Amino acid sequence: MSSPRGQIAHLGYAELRTPDLDGTVWFFENILGMTTTYRDDLTAHVRTFDDYEQTSIVIRNATTSGIGRLGLRCTSDEALDARVADLVAAGREGRWEDGLAGTGRTFVTSDPDGHEIALYFDTTWYQAPEELRPGLKNQPQAKPNRGVGVRRFDHINFLASDVEAAANFHTELLGARVTEQIQMDDGRIAARWMTYTNKSYDVVYTEDWTGSNGRLHHLAFATENREDILRAADLCLDNGVPIETGPHKHAIQQTFFLYVFEPGGNRIELCNPLTRLVLAPDWKVVTWTEAERAKGQAWGLKTIESFHTYGTPPLESAKDFTYTPGILL
Amino acid sequence: MSSPRGQIAHLGYAELRTPDLDGTVWFFENILGMTTTYRDDLTAHVRTFDDYEQTSIVIRNATTSGIGRLGLRCTSDEALDARVADLVAAGREGRWEDGLAGTGRTFVTSDPDGHEIALYFDTTWYQAPEELRPGLKNQPQAKPNRGVGVRRFDHINFLASDVEAAANFHTELLGARVTEQIQMDDGRIAARWMTYTNKSYDVVYTEDWTGSNGRLHHLAFATENREDILRAADLCLDNGVPIETGPHKHAIQQTFFLYVFEPGGNRIELCNPLTRLVLAPDWKVVTWTEAERAKGQAWGLKTIESFHTYGTPPLESAKDFTYTPGILL
Amino acid sequence: MSSPRGQIAHLGYAELRTPDLDGTVWFFENILGMTTTYRDDLTAHVRTFDDYEQTSIVIRNATTSGIGRLGLRCTSDEALDARVADLVAAGREGRWEDGLAGTGRTFVTSDPDGHEIALYFDTTWYQAPEELRPGLKNQPQAKPNRGVGVRRFDHINFLASDVEAAANFHTELLGARVTEQIQMDDGRIAARWMTYTNKSYDVVYTEDWTGSNGRLHHLAFATENREDILRAADLCLDNGVPIETGPHKHAIQQTFFLYVFEPGGNRIELCNPLTRLVLAPDWKVVTWTEAERAKGQAWGLKTIESFHTYGTPPLESAKDFTYTPGILL
Amino acid sequence: MSSPRGQIAHLGYAELRTPDLDGTVWFFENILGMTTTYRDDLTAHVRTFDDYEQTSIVIRNATTSGIGRLGLRCTSDEALDARVADLVAAGREGRWEDGLAGTGRTFVTSDPDGHEIALYFDTTWYQAPEELRPGLKNQPQAKPNRGVGVRRFDHINFLASDVEAAANFHTELLGARVTEQIQMDDGRIAARWMTYTNKSYDVVYTEDWTGSNGRLHHLAFATENREDILRAADLCLDNGVPIETGPHKHAIQQTFFLYVFEPGGNRIELCNPLTRLVLAPDWKVVTWTEAERAKGQAWGLKTIESFHTYGTPPLESAKDFTYTPGILL
Repeated sequence: MSSPRGQIAHLGYAELRTPDLDGTVWFFENILGMTTTYRDDLTAHVRTFDDYEQTSIVIRNATTSGIGRLGLRCTSDEALDARVADLVAAGREGRWEDGLAGTGRTFVTSDPDGHEIALYFDTTWYQAPEELRPGLKNQPQAKPNRGVGVRRFDHINFLASDVEAAANFHTELLGARVTEQIQMDDGRIAARWMTYTNKSYDVVYTEDWTGSNGRLHHLAFATENREDILRAADLCLDNGVPIETGPHKHAIQQTFFLYVFEPGGNRIELCNPLTRLVLAPDWKVVTWTEAERAKGQAWGLKTIESFHTYGTPPLESAKDFTYTPGILL
Repeated sequence: MSSPRGQIAHLGYAELRTPDLDGTVWFFENILGMTTTYRDDLTAHVRTFDDYEQTSIVIRNATTSGIGRLGLRCTSDEALDARVADLVAAGREGRWEDGLAGTGRTFVTSDPDGHEIALYFDTTWYQAPEELRPGLKNQPQAKPNRGVGVRRFDHINFLASDVEAAANFHTELLGARVTEQIQMDDGRIAARWMTYTNKSYDVVYTEDWTGSNGRLHHLAFATENREDILRAADLCLDNGVPIETGPHKHAIQQTFFLYVFEPGGNRIELCNPLTRLVLAPDWKVVTWTEAERAKGQAWGLKTIESFHTYGTPPLESAKDFTYTPGILL
Repeated sequence: MSSPRGQIAHLGYAELRTPDLDGTVWFFENILGMTTTYRDDLTAHVRTFDDYEQTSIVIRNATTSGIGRLGLRCTSDEALDARVADLVAAGREGRWEDGLAGTGRTFVTSDPDGHEIALYFDTTWYQAPEELRPGLKNQPQAKPNRGVGVRRFDHINFLASDVEAAANFHTELLGARVTEQIQMDDGRIAARWMTYTNKSYDVVYTEDWTGSNGRLHHLAFATENREDILRAADLCLDNGVPIETGPHKHAIQQTFFLYVFEPGGNRIELCNPLTRLVLAPDWKVVTWTEAERAKGQAWGLKTIESFHTYGTPPLESAKDFTYTPGILL
Repeated sequence: MSSPRGQIAHLGYAELRTPDLDGTVWFFENILGMTTTYRDDLTAHVRTFDDYEQTSIVIRNATTSGIGRLGLRCTSDEALDARVADLVAAGREGRWEDGLAGTGRTFVTSDPDGHEIALYFDTTWYQAPEELRPGLKNQPQAKPNRGVGVRRFDHINFLASDVEAAANFHTELLGARVTEQIQMDDGRIAARWMTYTNKSYDVVYTEDWTGSNGRLHHLAFATENREDILRAADLCLDNGVPIETGPHKHAIQQTFFLYVFEPGGNRIELCNPLTRLVLAPDWKVVTWTEAERAKGQAWGLKTIESFHTYGTPPLESAKDFTYTPGILL
């Protein structure tokens, strides 16, 4: 098998399901400050101001919340074909399709937990319309004057019944590197953070406590700085968007975070890594023990219970969870 | 004469003239993130999210740019009457009127340079409509999700042909305190910063190089933090709002600043004092010499020439100034 | 009785007791970034870089933690005498003394809960030695390059067995204004925030759950911005300073906060109000109900239990509390 | 020739020459907040808190300022050997050596302008001594409580008489990618920005106006956020470190910057890219024209003259430049 390291360039786009398309689009536009580039009765395409491809997230009207496809952009057409050859050789099923949302020929497969994964290289670089032209030519579009103005679709955190199997799909077949993980006292990997880039993570798997498959823990968007996350918390408070937890600093990966629920019910993270990158080619995986995880976040915040009991779509077995935002009037 | 110290509570509102009402309102709403509470063909009332009175700025359609009235709120009805008695005793002309923009009985006079100054106590506390209700009851309205979201109408900088005479009006008749000033080598006061509060300044007079009267140097709005000023600079760059100078830190008063021109031509400052206050009751005036002023701003930025040659309304004698924003594409 | 409003200018200094003088001084120098101006075996004087008086905090070696005197600076000698006359007329005991730490003649009394309160006007303006000369003449000393570099001794939060009685001492005899308070369902005032300035609070009383007197909830220092508080949290984490709670935003007063325990055991707050001020002369007291208080802080953080069970000096009745910092490794 | 893309992992270390070793070390420790790990009469090794290798910068006592070797870490031993084979095949001279400052076997060569370039793979991961242990196990050492606390040795900007030839060395032989450049009207490349990572640049060449070789424009260190750069400017102002220009935002690469001169005379940049990364595998080079460059920086600041006339070591032909820091007493 050819060495895949470096053949996946970065996260492309994700499909998000929502039972409240209008509400979800309102959230992406007015809280995250993203731009809608396409809209019909069932679908909206939205983008951050600094993603160079046309589309960051494809929002789909659906009967429930949850995640659809994750698009991964390869470094070249040859890299795409090499990845597909390896996937086929490893017995993963898949099919060639026309791409979504401005992307070209695409190989659609799934991880062992059932999340749809799509590989492509051809893509459409965003061309801003006149009214969204940026002031500087090295930026795809003007910075929005609405909402937070997130810079980038940053990472995805999938729930999976078997974290290790799902994560191996990325490391063994697609060339991802593990940077950090949680290992329980019985040896089980409860969560694993992986990267395709110099970011410290792009794709995460977290154990699904319900044992079900194909669910989402959260989608995350990178802000320019921490102040934008503090501002986001104020905007959420004043606009009735439920805050789950944060702003605070994760011990794992040291990300400054805010978790909120968009109107469709999906958990969304606003994240800021400051300027932290993983540059070492031989990075040593950081393993957190069950005891260390139990200590909570960097500055002492205990991890909120719903973080371990809520995913989308919500399941019967998880339905006893009722989120009550802990905010004042 | 009774001691006036403490009888003026704070800046209330200002009237701003613009030849481009739509453009000016667009700027206040979309760049500053202020809320329009009243609008007709000739007038708009706009407010910051944290000013407790109904109106921060009354924008007037006019043939030219410039400043109208400055409203100062007294600490009580008795303080208002005491100030008026002193003004009359000192020979200043004035008249009682109904107030503007939610304020009650008002005494209208002018400073020696001809800027209209209005004193009042009765005012209308802002009541946010349902859709602008804040999340916390100690805040007048929700934080806007558009533009910078300035917190407060912070200060006004008037041009005056005789700075000392104009400043004395505030210190001798209204109880303002001088905190800093620029004194030229010939002894002339070229600029004076005064406060009615614990802020380090509320009202400033700067010498009008044209020798004319009643003009404006700039209006200033306080942001929550410096990041909001850096973000404002990006929004201005991407939205075609000309930046005159900044972001940078003033040596005088240590304010972090950004100066821009709103579409009507008036200079607007976004300012942030960090947490600096003047608490000393016997503050010693800080006097900057001509040589010190020539050194420029705190971190070494030379003061831009237009800062000394542009005011509103622009005069014949100042008309040779053509502003060319120094920004890329 | 003469109207006292405006006769107290601001908080001057506080005396802090510590059983670990070296540890406490290390914390003030290396975490808060304050400057020691005097040190002997039993005492240290420390100052923030922007307090204009010589001393912000007098640290006293003691058998236990806790608070000593609070110094309040009057607006003039006449104001000092007027306050003392009112105190005497109201039957409060007190004595004239030479002042502490650079202050002149001082009247020492106590609030009804037994906290020592000292009034003075004469004070020593700080003169920085050569190596601490600031770059700008409107700043008392150079900004420290160690620790956070807090700007100001910002406020004090006293525990009191009877909050209303203690608070009345400040409002009725010294001219403080109430800005916010917590009122329990039985009508009891559980906490009251008062100001002598345009800051939204300077002195706070919180109900002492042990029923004892003269104790301290916390001392607070204002940082220049919120980033300094996030940085402080990192410095505390890396230097073994226990974080009690935060960084987060209070619902009450909207302060961005971090609570830590200095090595002597006293709770210290790093606080940032952004640019929020109370300018209205007729501010309407904001009253939070028992239910609202139970909701926790602005963005949903539940108030940590130790916040309601720990004060200094710790009492027998409070000794079952053992603080375990909730931080990783 | 084998494809080198991806075989250089990242910048390792740089050697900096100084005629004032004590002064330079003082600056790195007290302004940048770096840690000295080795010191003798002629040399100091300093590191940022988040560089995982032992040494970020080797400071050398010398008769003049300027740059020595730049270390580049390869992704593996095989990658190192492949790079060396290509260099030899291309006729570049070089030699194998023991490495500097904790690195292993090293191939030392030079770029066409004469700057020493060293390739290595073996390196020593930093092990913090007890007193510098971090609070979180995914961080190499505690965050310093002195100075700014820069996170990373970020990039180097070399002066070169022939920019294109020097840049081609990195792109053709080492696999760097060009992200942005300045092209003069006569077609000459005046500056070129290249990256080995997802950072938007690691190595820059700028035309040396003196026509000489081997000189340095500046070394740059990444701060965690923009507030750290604003704080650095205050620290420099108060500690007598000359600020050349900034803080401001570059149009090219959009970096938030501050340029200062360390006591040895070398230009040092504190830089912050916010969260900007170049993730596109087929990034289209952004070319700035002579006219665009003349416009100055993003928010309108004109590029300061000394930026085009000062490099280290200073030459006879450049000696008419006398830097006068534009700061107020």
